[in-house]
Amino acid sequence: MSEIRKDPISHTWVIISIERAKRPSDYTKASAENENGQLSENCPLCKEAAIPPPPNDPWSGIAKERNNQWVTRVLPNKFPALKPDVSLAQKEENGFYHSLSGVGGHEIILDSLNHTETLSQMKLSQLEAMLLTYQTRFFRWKLDHRISYVLIFRNYKKAAGASLSHPHSQVIASPIIPPRIFEELREAKEYYKLHRECIFCRMIRDELKLRVRLIYQNPSILIFSPYAARFPFETYIIPKKHLASLEETDKKTLKDLSKAFKFLFSRLAEVLSDPPYNYMLHVSPLKTPGLLYYHWHIEVIPRLAMPAGYEFGSGIFINPTSPEEAAKILRKKENDSSAT
Amino acid sequence: MSEIRKDPISHTWVIISIERAKRPSDYTKASAENENGQLSENCPLCKEAAIPPPPNDPWSGIAKERNNQWVTRVLPNKFPALKPDVSLAQKEENGFYHSLSGVGGHEIILDSLNHTETLSQMKLSQLEAMLLTYQTRFFRWKLDHRISYVLIFRNYKKAAGASLSHPHSQVIASPIIPPRIFEELREAKEYYKLHRECIFCRMIRDELKLRVRLIYQNPSILIFSPYAARFPFETYIIPKKHLASLEETDKKTLKDLSKAFKFLFSRLAEVLSDPPYNYMLHVSPLKTPGLLYYHWHIEVIPRLAMPAGYEFGSGIFINPTSPEEAAKILRKKENDSSAT
Repeated sequence: MSEIRKDPISHTWVIISIERAKRPSDYTKASAENENGQLSENCPLCKEAAIPPPPNDPWSGIAKERNNQWVTRVLPNKFPALKPDVSLAQKEENGFYHSLSGVGGHEIILDSLNHTETLSQMKLSQLEAMLLTYQTRFFRWKLDHRISYVLIFRNYKKAAGASLSHPHSQVIASPIIPPRIFEELREAKEYYKLHRECIFCRMIRDELKLRVRLIYQNPSILIFSPYAARFPFETYIIPKKHLASLEETDKKTLKDLSKAFKFLFSRLAEVLSDPPYNYMLHVSPLKTPGLLYYHWHIEVIPRLAMPAGYEFGSGIFINPTSPEEAAKILRKKENDSSAT
Repeated sequence: MSEIRKDPISHTWVIISIERAKRPSDYTKASAENENGQLSENCPLCKEAAIPPPPNDPWSGIAKERNNQWVTRVLPNKFPALKPDVSLAQKEENGFYHSLSGVGGHEIILDSLNHTETLSQMKLSQLEAMLLTYQTRFFRWKLDHRISYVLIFRNYKKAAGASLSHPHSQVIASPIIPPRIFEELREAKEYYKLHRECIFCRMIRDELKLRVRLIYQNPSILIFSPYAARFPFETYIIPKKHLASLEETDKKTLKDLSKAFKFLFSRLAEVLSDPPYNYMLHVSPLKTPGLLYYHWHIEVIPRLAMPAGYEFGSGIFINPTSPEEAAKILRKKENDSSAT
């Protein structure tokens, strides 16, 4: 059973994940593996996707009615960081150290059945299906009263932490609100109290006015590189309209979001030779519908620079490419719907 | 000139480092380089170390009196994240975004003149010279009234962010107290107010009593894996006696610290096949001598697991090796001075 531990000094949360337990030799072995070592005939996700959808299953992915095949597929992670069949309990060690039981959920989303398809290659309809599948996870985990937060993320390529090469995203449902979200919520709330405006809406307004960090826009979605970008070519994807969570986001916005994905991941692939990346969905917590001060967004970080001693020791990031320069490079001049 | 920017929502600080500026092709090129590509005859650090010490230079390293050769050498970083010849100034963009000028210092310490020497191979006298050189950086930067904090760290091997293979550490002197240190200071102060005890002293007491995460001890130094270890085999090196900064640390403690280094880095090399690692010195800020609530320590993180989407998105770390298991493996049963 996993344990969610809290550091008594920095208050950092850590999931000590026994299901994923490794011995020293596993770490040194893993580093010798090939990036594309996973062949599609041996891919466990391809195998799972070949099993046809069962009837009346609202939570396991999107299926085509026509031929009863999966379009996207949701599976429990075989080595879950958190598990649902555990009861929520607190533990204390020596009156000083505190932990929670590792209750929660950890899912894999097959973003496509095509083993080698990248986001830049996907059709808009497939991207849309992927985003709709993301949305279902919030509806699913809302049914579990122990869960406070659902974080959806995608690790692409081994250098970005992916251990499977099949196109996939991940979902971690946790009993705690993650600290990075908590801090955003706290600051956004403070800003709202003072200015009666969502801080993200303000940021969108500023970026649309200043234009120096703007990368792309369509009727619902904006892409820009944030002012204090931690990583080279870090970008934010955000709905222009105030929306706190993916649950309350309509189909039209998701359609425009799929177009924004197509644009950004094609540009990243072109400009940076199909780089490894992570992206993370930041949404409001499950039990707080319609927040006026929080605004969902997606943080995309190509893995080009290595966070090292200074970043880990200080919490300060050193970014050798200014967001203005990154935006200039990612903007596509000939594209009608682009920002310029 | 670099700029130190503050994210308006998460309040994360980022150094936009123009001196280190890179174009997209630099990132993709860099990833194709060989880990051990740097030959010692082409090593810029070896070349610098061959220049004999000038007379009356208290700040550039430790030299042997006998033959006027360097033992350790301090050099300004050629691509500094922060620079001293800049005046401290604030900037504002659109009344919403804030930054400081990139004032500060960024130094390279040659930990040894021997191009291939690892910490596990160094003689105790060399380790001691390295640690004494670390100490001089606090005396040096205290002379600059604009500097609030000195962070010393070491990135070992390319997979841990090192761009030079010559044994070296780095120093970043900044006009701000880094957020990770700030949070530790805040919590430690709160704990002191409530309990009239340093929280680190309490932790040392607990770890010595519980013994499950203890790895090594000698008369002055303790090594243990922290309760909420973020990374597999993460360890803390800490003086047993209450000491807030390296400045106030006596020679005897530094001698014992060099023994602790020898033990830990030899064990890591044995157990984990000489892994890449980062370590970071956490000390009190420059202008706060003798703090009763803060206690210096060194965080050592072998780079075995990759922080990815979940870690960056949530601030929660997933660690597949419990600190108790890591400590058991790193403890050396036959060693007299070890914890068991």
